[in-house]
Amino acid sequence: MRSVQDQLAAVLAAVGPVAPLDVVLSDAPGCILAEDVLAPADVPMLPVASRDGYAVATGDLRGAAPGTALVLPVAHDVQAGDPAALRLAPGQAVRIASGGPLPAGADAVLPAEETDRGAVRVTLHRVPSPWENVRPAGADAPAGSVVLAAGTRLGARQLAVAAATGRGRLRVHPAPRVVILPIGSELAEPGTPRRDGGVYESAGHALEAAVRDAGATPVRARAVTDDRAVLGEMLEDQLVRADVVVTTGGLSESQHDTLADVLAPLGTVRFDQVAMAPGFRHGFGTLGDGSDAVPVFALPGHPVSAQVAFEVFVRPALRAMAGHTDLFRPSVAARAEVGWPSPAGVRQFVPAAVVGSPTEGYRVTPVGDPGSSSIAGLAHANALAVVGEQDADVVAGQVVHCLVLEG
Amino acid sequence: MRSVQDQLAAVLAAVGPVAPLDVVLSDAPGCILAEDVLAPADVPMLPVASRDGYAVATGDLRGAAPGTALVLPVAHDVQAGDPAALRLAPGQAVRIASGGPLPAGADAVLPAEETDRGAVRVTLHRVPSPWENVRPAGADAPAGSVVLAAGTRLGARQLAVAAATGRGRLRVHPAPRVVILPIGSELAEPGTPRRDGGVYESAGHALEAAVRDAGATPVRARAVTDDRAVLGEMLEDQLVRADVVVTTGGLSESQHDTLADVLAPLGTVRFDQVAMAPGFRHGFGTLGDGSDAVPVFALPGHPVSAQVAFEVFVRPALRAMAGHTDLFRPSVAARAEVGWPSPAGVRQFVPAAVVGSPTEGYRVTPVGDPGSSSIAGLAHANALAVVGEQDADVVAGQVVHCLVLEG
Repeated sequence: MRSVQDQLAAVLAAVGPVAPLDVVLSDAPGCILAEDVLAPADVPMLPVASRDGYAVATGDLRGAAPGTALVLPVAHDVQAGDPAALRLAPGQAVRIASGGPLPAGADAVLPAEETDRGAVRVTLHRVPSPWENVRPAGADAPAGSVVLAAGTRLGARQLAVAAATGRGRLRVHPAPRVVILPIGSELAEPGTPRRDGGVYESAGHALEAAVRDAGATPVRARAVTDDRAVLGEMLEDQLVRADVVVTTGGLSESQHDTLADVLAPLGTVRFDQVAMAPGFRHGFGTLGDGSDAVPVFALPGHPVSAQVAFEVFVRPALRAMAGHTDLFRPSVAARAEVGWPSPAGVRQFVPAAVVGSPTEGYRVTPVGDPGSSSIAGLAHANALAVVGEQDADVVAGQVVHCLVLEG
Repeated sequence: MRSVQDQLAAVLAAVGPVAPLDVVLSDAPGCILAEDVLAPADVPMLPVASRDGYAVATGDLRGAAPGTALVLPVAHDVQAGDPAALRLAPGQAVRIASGGPLPAGADAVLPAEETDRGAVRVTLHRVPSPWENVRPAGADAPAGSVVLAAGTRLGARQLAVAAATGRGRLRVHPAPRVVILPIGSELAEPGTPRRDGGVYESAGHALEAAVRDAGATPVRARAVTDDRAVLGEMLEDQLVRADVVVTTGGLSESQHDTLADVLAPLGTVRFDQVAMAPGFRHGFGTLGDGSDAVPVFALPGHPVSAQVAFEVFVRPALRAMAGHTDLFRPSVAARAEVGWPSPAGVRQFVPAAVVGSPTEGYRVTPVGDPGSSSIAGLAHANALAVVGEQDADVVAGQVVHCLVLEG
């Protein structure tokens, strides 16, 4: 038996970030940036108005007696995007739209609301302060500055600054493409009839959503029988489009040899009994070699075992491959509301309901039978309670560490 | 001037969940379920082995003297998916794979590891307890049970149970399709050359990612000029594929009439000055009428103002349309590390860095100039500090509420 810790260490030692790739902005959300992004020029390039109003030179107006209405001729209209050829003549005003380039010689914008909105001549209700309602050149991003550092997770706000500096593509660690291959002659696709004794394919559908939730890109293959030729052909077909292969099922003693035999000529895969419950049979290794090697996970077939194995081993690996440094789910320490039996010598993962808050503390209750977790129970859980190898049974009141699942 | 609260109330009063739709499982993650899902039959349909081993009738073995090796003839091999036609003859064993249906008459499975793995006759190293390593019929989901209730958010674990009960499609509130339309003659697509005075289109790219992050489906249109004919044609083209339309830009005094005139014949849109900073000009209304009415948001053009308006008004609306009941970002109370000026009478949203934890408390510092937020500053913030209309300047040590943004 291999410990969970040793299995996870072996997995994480074998995976690394996917090679960086230039992607268009719409493919970048959720990815980790693989380069520093510099502003090649000031954003905005010129000082611009931040309000609709009238651009003036405050020096011209400083002598005006308080209370006097200031009336200036309006020399021009400036829109956002106009080239900045204008120069403000002394004693004049220029009507300017928000985002429009400030004419040379002007140093402030009085908002339209504080004027009579004149088109030929304008009455100003007060004298603006110097640089009022003006955004200087480079206010959004100065030329030469690093606006985004390598390692940044790209979301809406990061894409805004990349786009504003003119970048249409970014170098990122792309989302790994994960081929999911359910194995089993008994499997029928949900929504289709099944023969007597057939079972609906469920683990693959769950893994597809789990892969996406981990920030990777799933490709779920149709379930295949554990026939050597069919399985081998399917694996070779799928391998070309995969950064990772995840199989589920095909690990029972009678089937195991088939999967092992099919994988053997394709790479190096090790099958172990891992000291965990549920789902103690696992395969992990690589297909192909050198820089083209593709990690392969052979997960158990029962949907609960497959999802637990995904959470414990595959999700951290996918996060590492996508360039993330935070690989693991958040964990909380919760007090058990009830006790439950836990096998000694194995790490037990129990679908559980965690309630509470960081300030008042957390409490945890198993959902369903902790010794035989059900698919429906896992669907109603919001956490996996983790009982260590050294712990035997959990007693009520004991503190248990819980992995918090999404939703 | 309209208050933020009034504007938000008007928005939320005008939107409701998108009409339910049947989608395939791979389109369901992240959606809210719009029906109860029942198990039409037991899952599993029959009692099954939960381990590879040998199925026996424990009653046959109870008389055996302790320490005696139990040797039984092996009558058959059972695989997962085999129909359950078998009946165990008294005094015999059946070799069974994990997931295989238990023969009638058997009531336990001894794991293969605790046998000599015999094919013709098997030596058992102990007598299993009744129902050991047997999952009863319905253990994963009993027939007739509601395995998922309407209103459930669908993730991997929920899809697993839906698939296991045979459902290939689910009735959900689909992700709203959001057409994003950047307006402005000055806008150039990032990655392309721009003419003198041109500005790279940034707000639309940010909104595309923000819409996706909110759980909706973005369709970003190319930037259009504020020419009436072009804008009107683009809007009519895009409307057919939209559950929501979001424009950005086109709200300066000189352009505003164009956008208002183009929208007027298509529906009812109200333009307001909303008492907030940044970005006080907003339009909101509906295009079309009756059950086909499509909400439209006219957001400011500056990327920071557009993103703040999205967070405050559009994101909660999209969440409501997708059937979520939690509409708002999490909020924390944080102590200001420094003071900053805030205009009286308006709600101020300041890109800010929040640090701390629920137990030790949170602290907040603005990123960049709080009076003139920059695109680069927002990219480095992890929160929006919200200063109320009644508050004038923020003083160091004051508690400020902060909306926590993703990432």
